[in-house]
Amino acid sequence: MNAPKSALLTEDNMSLFVDYYQLTMGQADFDVHNEAVITANYYVRSIPQGQYLIAAGLEQVIHYILNLHFTDATLDWLAQRGDLRTDYLTSLKNFHFEGSIFAVPEGTPVFPNEPIINVTGRSRDVQLLETYLLCVMNFQTLIATKASRIVQSAQGRPVFDFGARRAHGRDAGILAARASFIGGVSGTSLVLAGHYFDIPYVGTMAHKFISERLTELDAFRDYAKAFPNSTILLIDTYDTIQGARNACIVAKEMKARGAQLRAVRLDSGDIMALSKDVRRILDAEGLDYVQIIASHELDEFQIGTMLENCAPLDSFGVGTRLATGANFNSLTGEGGPSALGGVYKLVESNNRPVGKQSLDEPSKATIPGRKQIYRITDANGYYVSDCVTHWDELNAEGKPLLIPIIQNGELVYNFPSLHEIQAQTALELEKVPDSHKRLTGATPYLVTLDPVVA
Amino acid sequence: MNAPKSALLTEDNMSLFVDYYQLTMGQADFDVHNEAVITANYYVRSIPQGQYLIAAGLEQVIHYILNLHFTDATLDWLAQRGDLRTDYLTSLKNFHFEGSIFAVPEGTPVFPNEPIINVTGRSRDVQLLETYLLCVMNFQTLIATKASRIVQSAQGRPVFDFGARRAHGRDAGILAARASFIGGVSGTSLVLAGHYFDIPYVGTMAHKFISERLTELDAFRDYAKAFPNSTILLIDTYDTIQGARNACIVAKEMKARGAQLRAVRLDSGDIMALSKDVRRILDAEGLDYVQIIASHELDEFQIGTMLENCAPLDSFGVGTRLATGANFNSLTGEGGPSALGGVYKLVESNNRPVGKQSLDEPSKATIPGRKQIYRITDANGYYVSDCVTHWDELNAEGKPLLIPIIQNGELVYNFPSLHEIQAQTALELEKVPDSHKRLTGATPYLVTLDPVVA
Repeated sequence: MNAPKSALLTEDNMSLFVDYYQLTMGQADFDVHNEAVITANYYVRSIPQGQYLIAAGLEQVIHYILNLHFTDATLDWLAQRGDLRTDYLTSLKNFHFEGSIFAVPEGTPVFPNEPIINVTGRSRDVQLLETYLLCVMNFQTLIATKASRIVQSAQGRPVFDFGARRAHGRDAGILAARASFIGGVSGTSLVLAGHYFDIPYVGTMAHKFISERLTELDAFRDYAKAFPNSTILLIDTYDTIQGARNACIVAKEMKARGAQLRAVRLDSGDIMALSKDVRRILDAEGLDYVQIIASHELDEFQIGTMLENCAPLDSFGVGTRLATGANFNSLTGEGGPSALGGVYKLVESNNRPVGKQSLDEPSKATIPGRKQIYRITDANGYYVSDCVTHWDELNAEGKPLLIPIIQNGELVYNFPSLHEIQAQTALELEKVPDSHKRLTGATPYLVTLDPVVA
Repeated sequence: MNAPKSALLTEDNMSLFVDYYQLTMGQADFDVHNEAVITANYYVRSIPQGQYLIAAGLEQVIHYILNLHFTDATLDWLAQRGDLRTDYLTSLKNFHFEGSIFAVPEGTPVFPNEPIINVTGRSRDVQLLETYLLCVMNFQTLIATKASRIVQSAQGRPVFDFGARRAHGRDAGILAARASFIGGVSGTSLVLAGHYFDIPYVGTMAHKFISERLTELDAFRDYAKAFPNSTILLIDTYDTIQGARNACIVAKEMKARGAQLRAVRLDSGDIMALSKDVRRILDAEGLDYVQIIASHELDEFQIGTMLENCAPLDSFGVGTRLATGANFNSLTGEGGPSALGGVYKLVESNNRPVGKQSLDEPSKATIPGRKQIYRITDANGYYVSDCVTHWDELNAEGKPLLIPIIQNGELVYNFPSLHEIQAQTALELEKVPDSHKRLTGATPYLVTLDPVVA
């Protein structure tokens, strides 16, 4: 039997997480001794939903850059494939990124066409980073932004990430939990995300646990005994109303032995209507402390509608539409691809601003030159506007957003914990005026271009 | 400086790629000595686009199951978190999956509600596999299916996966390349996918390579010298028509020294119109052998429309909408979440068929019992219908689709190479009548339920 392959990314093979053109262009640059020092910008031309983005993913990008190396095995493998020559491949042997990175800290609200990361270094080194940087930043920024919208719709009620099973592969499960925590969710169901990032993880129960027992009541009792103070009962396996009554029986048994049922969970049907019935049933039995959790195809539109209609829901488990950054309005059915189309573009070469004109599609033109963002706030700290200036602009007002992360190959930034990033994100989002945060019909935030740049 | 985290999945931490309820239910089962032998089914209730799915992901699922183990470090970490007790955690120490798996081979067309994987074993072991299995199967099946639709739209012209930069994380990049190769694409831009799966990888050039040189012609010449026989020139950086003329100059220089320009690439603007102009320019210079490659927000709808309008395109690079399995019609703007909602449900416990009724949402009810699929074909091998029967049905006609993969913990299946899977997938898709494969308005394929099951 030949063993099945895992295809897991490792620190030794991540050098191959490149689009092949990065290596072919590298060889062409090597051939002509192109030693130009360039700057590339990571930025996003347009936002799939709403008018702001929450930048996320920098920590994984920097881990990659600091650890990027080509093993002998990797180089031998590439050499055997033809096309790339040994002299070029040998030059990769001692690769170590010696350039500099300035970036907007994770959790910062950013807007279209603002440089989120500046990478400066030798042309072919800067080029090597493209695919990995784009992949990690595009995904985490998409998810942190989507999470912040869903959390906003829940109006202070906790939201949990339940998305791993519908995420786009294993890494997406882990990174979606991370990015959605940045965006404000209270926890995740994925234990590995708890392990890596100290994100609180939570669990309820599956329909399986109930349907493999003779009665729902048997299942509820078995589970409640195992978890005296953290039991959440799933009540929709057969009939939600009967499930609520069974939950009351078990809650009272728990109370009698000094334990406490934490919550019941609704996972199908007309959750808005069912939640009202279930609340009445619980309250009639004196179980007002038992919370109601909703899950099942939720997003900011569904949660918003249910709460507008006074559904007595205490928290939400959001899976598919959070972990995939679903770019569709579930009330209207309008949608687009669930992806952030961030790009990584050359803006400066040997101190000469450069760009792409794109006569055939002006929206794809780049703004030349290495740039800084200055954020202008009012007396109360509320965001007023951003100004994108040339990097060396001396007279800019406001706070510069791009800060040093790597200088001449050395890490100069202390990564905050994910909990610190989450707290900072919430503070920053508070300062974005509501008009730019509305879930539908938000107005664009003002980003001006310094005349030198424009 | 605290080091940034990669958050990479490893063979040692993949045991934590579980939703927490799998562990809490495991402890509750442990407490009541639940040693029931159960079967769970992986299946998909409904298909996001079209009327068929291409099953994919089994190899990574089986790798996981065969290698799943709990390290001491993992168990210690879990023990320190509270909630889970040491006696239960100790029982995981020697975990080894001892059950059996039957599955539909990768690359097989399957239809809604058909069991794609049967997992049989001790209840809490079967339960442990849920999140990883769903994550890998849902994503790869989504992408293999999307790829087959895009390849179909290209009517024999090669399609390449360019999606890593917009994929949902690093694993999604790798697995999307794998799954789209199963679905029929000719190659990928992601080198690591070539390394892991022997998928042909291809590269063109980036706008950066052009804009960092003084002229487009300089850039074309530098690249052409490095790759005498595989050069593909990107001609839209400034003005596509002028880019095509520059490509002609370089193509003739290459010809004079015995090399050959392979292709030019269009990546923006009105590709349908531009491709006709570019073809005329190339042909007028006697360069009819130079191909035209299109990329930029392509999918089956865009490619179909361009080819219906006789765009002289020779191949396609498809990124975002392939690697994210975009579930939206780019001609109408209608869409939904880019995810496959496959589920993993208990169907049998100690030989007793079990299921979920779901009075409040009948579409979420499960079909009880361990099941086999029999596929009925006509004299020419074309699919006629499938019949889902009880596992032990003796009188079924047709070919059983679920075959043994793991028996009593031992691998009994020889995994075919990805190239073999791709070839088999193409053969199978040929046998699906066109009416079920149409890109819009396809008719559902007939799946009957054996009366014993129904």
